[in-house]
Amino acid sequence: MPPNHDFSDEERRGVYRAIHERRDVRAHFLQEPVPDEIIGRILEAAHHAPSVGFMQPWDFIVIRDTTIREAVYRNFECASRRASGSYQGEQRKLYDSLKLAGIVEAPVNICITCDRERPKGNGLGRQTQEMVDIYSTVCAVQNLWLAARAESLGVGWVSILDPEQVKATLGIPQTITLVAYLCLGYVSEFRAHPDLEEKGWETRTDLASVTHFDRWGIHEKSLDKSFQE
Amino acid sequence: MPPNHDFSDEERRGVYRAIHERRDVRAHFLQEPVPDEIIGRILEAAHHAPSVGFMQPWDFIVIRDTTIREAVYRNFECASRRASGSYQGEQRKLYDSLKLAGIVEAPVNICITCDRERPKGNGLGRQTQEMVDIYSTVCAVQNLWLAARAESLGVGWVSILDPEQVKATLGIPQTITLVAYLCLGYVSEFRAHPDLEEKGWETRTDLASVTHFDRWGIHEKSLDKSFQE
Repeated sequence: MPPNHDFSDEERRGVYRAIHERRDVRAHFLQEPVPDEIIGRILEAAHHAPSVGFMQPWDFIVIRDTTIREAVYRNFECASRRASGSYQGEQRKLYDSLKLAGIVEAPVNICITCDRERPKGNGLGRQTQEMVDIYSTVCAVQNLWLAARAESLGVGWVSILDPEQVKATLGIPQTITLVAYLCLGYVSEFRAHPDLEEKGWETRTDLASVTHFDRWGIHEKSLDKSFQE
Repeated sequence: MPPNHDFSDEERRGVYRAIHERRDVRAHFLQEPVPDEIIGRILEAAHHAPSVGFMQPWDFIVIRDTTIREAVYRNFECASRRASGSYQGEQRKLYDSLKLAGIVEAPVNICITCDRERPKGNGLGRQTQEMVDIYSTVCAVQNLWLAARAESLGVGWVSILDPEQVKATLGIPQTITLVAYLCLGYVSEFRAHPDLEEKGWETRTDLASVTHFDRWGIHEKSLDKSFQE
């Protein structure tokens, strides 16, 4: 392999740091503005995601306008109140105590959509698995999220929203699918563990229990050591 | 911000290298085996993807068995022949000339699935957007892909497969959704551009044309410079 294809130890560490120190940020946003140049870099990162047939089915809407973000926040509040009603007792109390969105506090919101009718890619790879254009768009979200972490920017993905209402607020055409609504900004801290783990909402699964070898249900013991890091 | 949260220039460069130099590899796999330790690290990377409600809905099946990979390859051949029939003339000739999967040449295949009925996460974030558990699983795919690039490993995502047949081949339960089937291995080279761009199947979109500001359809000119890199 030509040496220029290999990463230095520090470059490789950067990739693993981004992956392991990325957080879904809701509560620690700072008002500090994010320079255009950095927004440009993380959008380039998103735009270099893999896409089925090289379709590049995504669009990015960068939202800084306060009135628009307040409208999206009201949408979130309404959806979250409805969601709260589906929990009971201690779980409901815990749900209500969770900070679940930084739509207004974060200086930038980014909405990422998928145009499922975009002719680019000529349908390659979409005959057998029809959702892969959406999956490509999600890969763009994850690229953006990791690039943002490398720039010390926190990102939170808000799924507690009525997507059709968000589309109406942003003037997104009917034929376009909303995939992700993100809040983005500098943060006071990146927590060591996910918020939902720290707050006791859910625990981390043991990797070995979800890893199978050759066929479903075969859990090899030999790789276990690698999973202990 | 505490300095330990910031990346060094070289760590940040590593993240952008992984994102920009990642390729969807089909044609350049080497037979060289991939050490267990590295498989373990890239699965850990996948397992640290964001997930809605901290649900972690994924499973990973690491496939090295040749007989199984040959069965999946036959599935691919059949699906690809059907897909070929949907193109005509020059486009069909081009399709038939594309190398679209390295299932047998790559020493490792990894199938990534989503258990949509997994109770973890207690439904948080899934009331308003029902596909977000699948999206979490796609984030795991992209984490794995970028970690693999940092390890000089190529990955190809094969979507030209009948997913139900793959599930039968791998003994995956009916209730589990197949999200991605990946081929993985060391490579003779990482091409400078995506295969489908090099072969003339599709061109890269201009980022500015898919970036909107505050509302759909508003394309600001001021950020254009950032997009020229």
